[in-house]
Amino acid sequence: MKPWLEARAALAPHQPALTLNGITFTFATLAARARMLALRLRALGVREGDLVATLLPNGLPFVELVHAVPLCGAALLPLNVRLTSRELAFQLDDAKPALLVHAGGELAAAARAAANGSVRRVAAEPCDAALLAEIVPANPESANLRDAIDLEDTCAVLYTSGTTGAPKGAELRHASLLWSAIGSALHLGAVPGERWLACLPLFHVGGLSILTRSALTGSEVILHQHFAPDAVTHALAHERVSLVSLVAVMLERLLDVWGERPAPPTLRCVLLGGGPAPRPLIERANALGFPIVTTYGLTEAASQVATLPLHEVGRRTDIVGKPLLGTELRIADESGASLPPNTPGEILVRGPTLMRGYLRRPDETARALRDGWLHTGDVGTLDADGFLRVLDRRADLILSGGENVYPAEVEAILLAHPDVAEAAVVGLADPSFGQRVAAFIVPRGSAAATDAELERFCRARLAGYKIPRTFHRLAELPRNASGKVLRRALGERAELR
Amino acid sequence: MKPWLEARAALAPHQPALTLNGITFTFATLAARARMLALRLRALGVREGDLVATLLPNGLPFVELVHAVPLCGAALLPLNVRLTSRELAFQLDDAKPALLVHAGGELAAAARAAANGSVRRVAAEPCDAALLAEIVPANPESANLRDAIDLEDTCAVLYTSGTTGAPKGAELRHASLLWSAIGSALHLGAVPGERWLACLPLFHVGGLSILTRSALTGSEVILHQHFAPDAVTHALAHERVSLVSLVAVMLERLLDVWGERPAPPTLRCVLLGGGPAPRPLIERANALGFPIVTTYGLTEAASQVATLPLHEVGRRTDIVGKPLLGTELRIADESGASLPPNTPGEILVRGPTLMRGYLRRPDETARALRDGWLHTGDVGTLDADGFLRVLDRRADLILSGGENVYPAEVEAILLAHPDVAEAAVVGLADPSFGQRVAAFIVPRGSAAATDAELERFCRARLAGYKIPRTFHRLAELPRNASGKVLRRALGERAELR
Repeated sequence: MKPWLEARAALAPHQPALTLNGITFTFATLAARARMLALRLRALGVREGDLVATLLPNGLPFVELVHAVPLCGAALLPLNVRLTSRELAFQLDDAKPALLVHAGGELAAAARAAANGSVRRVAAEPCDAALLAEIVPANPESANLRDAIDLEDTCAVLYTSGTTGAPKGAELRHASLLWSAIGSALHLGAVPGERWLACLPLFHVGGLSILTRSALTGSEVILHQHFAPDAVTHALAHERVSLVSLVAVMLERLLDVWGERPAPPTLRCVLLGGGPAPRPLIERANALGFPIVTTYGLTEAASQVATLPLHEVGRRTDIVGKPLLGTELRIADESGASLPPNTPGEILVRGPTLMRGYLRRPDETARALRDGWLHTGDVGTLDADGFLRVLDRRADLILSGGENVYPAEVEAILLAHPDVAEAAVVGLADPSFGQRVAAFIVPRGSAAATDAELERFCRARLAGYKIPRTFHRLAELPRNASGKVLRRALGERAELR
Repeated sequence: MKPWLEARAALAPHQPALTLNGITFTFATLAARARMLALRLRALGVREGDLVATLLPNGLPFVELVHAVPLCGAALLPLNVRLTSRELAFQLDDAKPALLVHAGGELAAAARAAANGSVRRVAAEPCDAALLAEIVPANPESANLRDAIDLEDTCAVLYTSGTTGAPKGAELRHASLLWSAIGSALHLGAVPGERWLACLPLFHVGGLSILTRSALTGSEVILHQHFAPDAVTHALAHERVSLVSLVAVMLERLLDVWGERPAPPTLRCVLLGGGPAPRPLIERANALGFPIVTTYGLTEAASQVATLPLHEVGRRTDIVGKPLLGTELRIADESGASLPPNTPGEILVRGPTLMRGYLRRPDETARALRDGWLHTGDVGTLDADGFLRVLDRRADLILSGGENVYPAEVEAILLAHPDVAEAAVVGLADPSFGQRVAAFIVPRGSAAATDAELERFCRARLAGYKIPRTFHRLAELPRNASGKVLRRALGERAELR
């Protein structure tokens, strides 16, 4: 298949592909820049089957690399810029990329510290994005760049966020991202002239997949270097944004800046992922007219798995959504047998978006992918109409006195209290019960319900074993770059006291 | 893969799927009816690998059969209702379907006359659509209907229109129609809440593919039994139609009824296929605001191959368009070597929408499909920007005195004359020149340019060897059901004189 960006550039050369910092690049320009960059990568020794790592924030070099690397027959390894040097060194040593392209400043220092020894020597050193433009491109004749993409080739290796367990590199095929983009377009529609605001990190699949969708559907990406509520508010109000991808904490900060104005009429979809979102937040946004489309996605499935159908926007806030066309879901017990509707169990996913496996981890791959089904480790239910509810990450399941407690359920109750802005519930080691339930909350404004008041509030709404035994107050919850709460960090914090 | 209609019904059960005669069917209703019909087909003896022929006009039974037949693991053979009994008998004998479902009245008589002996006996007789509802469905347990579709299975066998050569059954795979729908959605967009008016015959690929797109993108089909300018005008003006598929002669008749009103604001695409359209007609429609999207398609490629990009609507009327994403085009000489830009040659097509081949015609299949490229027999050019021009059907090429004459080129000149409403140019046998060029025209209104005037008009615009030697006036041009001019019939008519 023709590389997607080049196919779109052939179809619509002069249409806008990417806008950042007020500068717009057409599809033809972006495709030409990507091909020139691919020649530079060849000159740096990037070969078929190589990995090209990035330690880059959102920006033009990242976007160009996404499209250039496949032209070399190589795959992208986008590293999380928030990792410590030690974490980076682990991933580089695990993946062994041929080249590491990094930004300047602090990231340059982190890259140099991390890459020592584990990145195959190319050119001379790991390569700064700013210096890439100075590399003399390889001769186009001898560079032997690809004119077609094999859909079964690896497109990107993404280390899963690692809130649980050691990071593993999910190998996504070109077909994974292609089918994800097609499934998304068939689910959400693809309106001509669409603009998709990307303020999620591109090194996560939620951001990366926006670029694939742009090339495939012809939508324009409005790229922000990071999430800044004022900048996003301005873009929504003034730049004809039709879709935006957010996680819950971003939506909350955005609404605080947005105020009580009605949502912009051009905005037709706020794709809300990155973990379960509090219902009061969704309802607050819907009330202003923000079309909140919840989604459950996984790196291993190239982003969206189940997404709220558009015709349910504003009507259903109790479920996540339904599977994209081509994707299948089932809920299974520990033997892998399907469970009846409304019975909690592990969420299993099958379909063309699934990863090939975890890079060089045959055992972990075999545990995750069985008979074509991805065992997500997440817990949820399907109702009789096929709507998915996500109850929790299995690894976060709290086992207390022989009972299962799903943190999300307790958190939803706490968030319904008017004095609670954010809440996270974890299990702490307990000599009697195995684990006991602990709640971490961010109070809203200056109001502050007492422990006794919060306990009363929960007791009216939850079975006794689900009620937090302790309440801890924080100024903010620790989160990773994609906005997921780091429950393990919370647990460690409480236990160190 | 889950059957498309059932996947859409799971996602959006209560959304409208089909409206005809003022009655709307939701996706859930349509999917349930299709599954019930599949059980009836099983009761009638339809087995895996069978063909189910239809002799039905546009209507609910046709739509249900399109979705029911794959659940039996069978393929659809939609027959053209305008064929004579003799032509029908040829196709039935060639394809040997297990079952023929026909309408009542004249079609019942035609079906009985044609099916005698060549349709495998099932139930008792070829089956009337009205009687199907009375068949007791097979037991769902033992019927063994499919829950998943194998994309490589044959979905439909469509006899190519046969304006040239003997009819051949093009075997389309499910993948052909899937990729056609995806390519169309990525090219034209897929707007939530979309309504596609289908007034083309569903037994041709241009109509059939509207049904596939509906299931895949969730658009609603507004189905008309046939093209009636008043009904189409009413639907466009009052029924929020966003897309409509037409052939040129339909567009002309529609505009005559529509008058000088501006085009309806809800209409975002008039997909104009079925052969080259006269530029003055396109310009007339564009001037009123009708968004004319020209397309070049083939039964063998599951409909659209190259289509005008939306951002070129109203700007380019001199070309057909660009290939859908996933589809490749090249222009070749007789050896199959690619020709430079703007050089006329045979149009070759490659991509996932191509047919498997012609049913039980290995020799003709091998001639048509070589190294994955479909040799269309059509003549065109690609310009440096990748725009396709279609010059003519190769079989219609007129060879006169050693020079090549492309009828479409001469017709375009004739149509530019204010007194000419329709024009068709053919080659007639000539003892001196091999062929001589003859023009058949439908005069506009009561005006009537003389032969001498028309010849002067052409001479000012065409090389001498391209100028028609004779002009014939007709009340209308003979066309097949999909609106293609029957050039052979014209030639025979002239030579019988």
